[in-house]
Amino acid sequence: MRRTYCADMPTTTPALIADSATSGFRQGTIERRDLRPDDIRIAIAYAGICHSDIHTVREEWGPAHFPLTVGHEIAGTVLEVGAEVTRHCVGDRVGVGCLVDSCGECEPCKDGMEMFCTKPAVGTYNAKGYDGEWTMGGYAQEVVVSERMVLRIPDALELDVAAPLLCAGITTYSPLRRWGAGTGRSVAVVGVGGLGHMGVKIAAAMGASVTTISRSDAKAADAVALGARAHIATSDPDAMRAAKGTFDIVLNTVSADIPIADYVRLLKPNGVVVNVGLPPSPYSISPGSLIGGNKAVAGSSIGGIAETQEMLDFCAEHGIAATIEVVSAADVNEVWDRVVDGDVRYRAVIDTSTITPA
Amino acid sequence: MRRTYCADMPTTTPALIADSATSGFRQGTIERRDLRPDDIRIAIAYAGICHSDIHTVREEWGPAHFPLTVGHEIAGTVLEVGAEVTRHCVGDRVGVGCLVDSCGECEPCKDGMEMFCTKPAVGTYNAKGYDGEWTMGGYAQEVVVSERMVLRIPDALELDVAAPLLCAGITTYSPLRRWGAGTGRSVAVVGVGGLGHMGVKIAAAMGASVTTISRSDAKAADAVALGARAHIATSDPDAMRAAKGTFDIVLNTVSADIPIADYVRLLKPNGVVVNVGLPPSPYSISPGSLIGGNKAVAGSSIGGIAETQEMLDFCAEHGIAATIEVVSAADVNEVWDRVVDGDVRYRAVIDTSTITPA
Repeated sequence: MRRTYCADMPTTTPALIADSATSGFRQGTIERRDLRPDDIRIAIAYAGICHSDIHTVREEWGPAHFPLTVGHEIAGTVLEVGAEVTRHCVGDRVGVGCLVDSCGECEPCKDGMEMFCTKPAVGTYNAKGYDGEWTMGGYAQEVVVSERMVLRIPDALELDVAAPLLCAGITTYSPLRRWGAGTGRSVAVVGVGGLGHMGVKIAAAMGASVTTISRSDAKAADAVALGARAHIATSDPDAMRAAKGTFDIVLNTVSADIPIADYVRLLKPNGVVVNVGLPPSPYSISPGSLIGGNKAVAGSSIGGIAETQEMLDFCAEHGIAATIEVVSAADVNEVWDRVVDGDVRYRAVIDTSTITPA
Repeated sequence: MRRTYCADMPTTTPALIADSATSGFRQGTIERRDLRPDDIRIAIAYAGICHSDIHTVREEWGPAHFPLTVGHEIAGTVLEVGAEVTRHCVGDRVGVGCLVDSCGECEPCKDGMEMFCTKPAVGTYNAKGYDGEWTMGGYAQEVVVSERMVLRIPDALELDVAAPLLCAGITTYSPLRRWGAGTGRSVAVVGVGGLGHMGVKIAAAMGASVTTISRSDAKAADAVALGARAHIATSDPDAMRAAKGTFDIVLNTVSADIPIADYVRLLKPNGVVVNVGLPPSPYSISPGSLIGGNKAVAGSSIGGIAETQEMLDFCAEHGIAATIEVVSAADVNEVWDRVVDGDVRYRAVIDTSTITPA
């Protein structure tokens, strides 16, 4: 059921809606605001399923505002543009990631780091917009977003495989770029999941020599297919010992608590462990382990709008995108459990045309 | 008593010698090896007193090898050169820092990071040299060192104020350079002591806007005289709160345990807390505090030989050096207690001509 837009019609759109942390999703409709002059209405074709969606709805990161529609890996086409929109036209292939607004005037915004907007930035779902309304995400058939936060999806990228780039792509691209992944550099990617598999593809495309690290060898063959030169199972202490001091960058995509000292030990001098996963417990880090090698432990959030566009263009140029499994709206509750179990290879993407409210 | 060198004489030199962790120093003589083809014999004029000397002798960093002469901030002139020496001539003004040997062939050595030599590098004192002999440091009138590890002290720098640059200077210069201190950047230096006062001078000379942070306002006026624009006392919670999110780099020179989260909080997006002090306890760092700002916590050791030379040249060019108090050999035991009490402003330097064994 694709709504035909008309100025006088109520601006509702089919969506997957969670009524509580434990309700699972029902198929219903949600409202989208009327277009402001700088707004774009997007017909969502695909929405990626990110583990953050699950953490949020299940209130593992704190209370959520229900009813809630999540999803911040959005790919589709422009359906309608506001009167003052200049960056995008009806029919353009576009994407929306984790942010739908920022002040645009603070130092981080001016520096292209909208995610650190001091106002602060407005998340794509479960966030209070500057208008006081709670935002609703991309598990829906339409979304309305200011043109400033809308990305162009290059023609070389199909919309389904592009959707996960809007979060998993930029979240791994940004730290790999910042910390200098490239030719002659040795990168370990910890965790071969939604984020990790993009980290492997992007680091390899940047020219780095990539090794994957996970608990077992179960994904070793996949990792090589994704672009890794080697795989290490943390269950093999000899392999971990042999890898000591061999990486410039360890990109940790795992959200569970990890023995971070084991990863610091893998670094060459001047190396960095950069974490994009958000484990529950604090890191315990020996000062000497950092000083004895000029090492760093860093965190990295998503990325700003300009850098997200750069990432999409980079992926198009290098012919890479997410490895996905397209799922139907009716299966999302079950797919979430599979995401939690690490059973999806490597990103589930909802075909939003399958959202069919009764 | 300056020994007149002669090939047939025993190669001993007056030195300050500790016989145990609690003995304090006596004035005696130690042996220096005969010159190898690539060795230089240096007449030491001044030796800086570094807190590391104290930690080592007092066995706060583990067992030490006694009898022990410490000191790794060495400035003097070349007395004699080995047959194959090409880099320095008799009479040259030279310095020696924390290292007296490295393999020269491993990846870190080739990358100019001799301190991370995999053989490993040989410290200036309390280290076993590649010849199996224990090294003895600069609280002495002479030292013999391979020319590869000997730095040129520019004419613009007096030897007494240059001595502390060989450790305190490079230890602060290296992280400030690596992490991008310079014009338009905001740098906080935590701790205004031997390391910290050099951090302030160097960061200011690099063009950064420098703020000092210490427990009280006792050194606030000094800090400004050293080149800081402002001072924050950690005892003032309002001042600490007001400084939240304002620094690109926090250079922590304090070796005591610090509440590292308080310093991470002071960082702007993409900022780094870089530690050169070695506190006893592990850091406890919240993953979210790093991710929510693309922040990093790093460690930094001394610096390689080429970078140490670069630092000396930088200091000469910018007319900066250590702020010192010249002390006599007879006073060193007492001065050490004052160093531990933070009572020296800002580096004690031994005039080695005052070492007069009975």
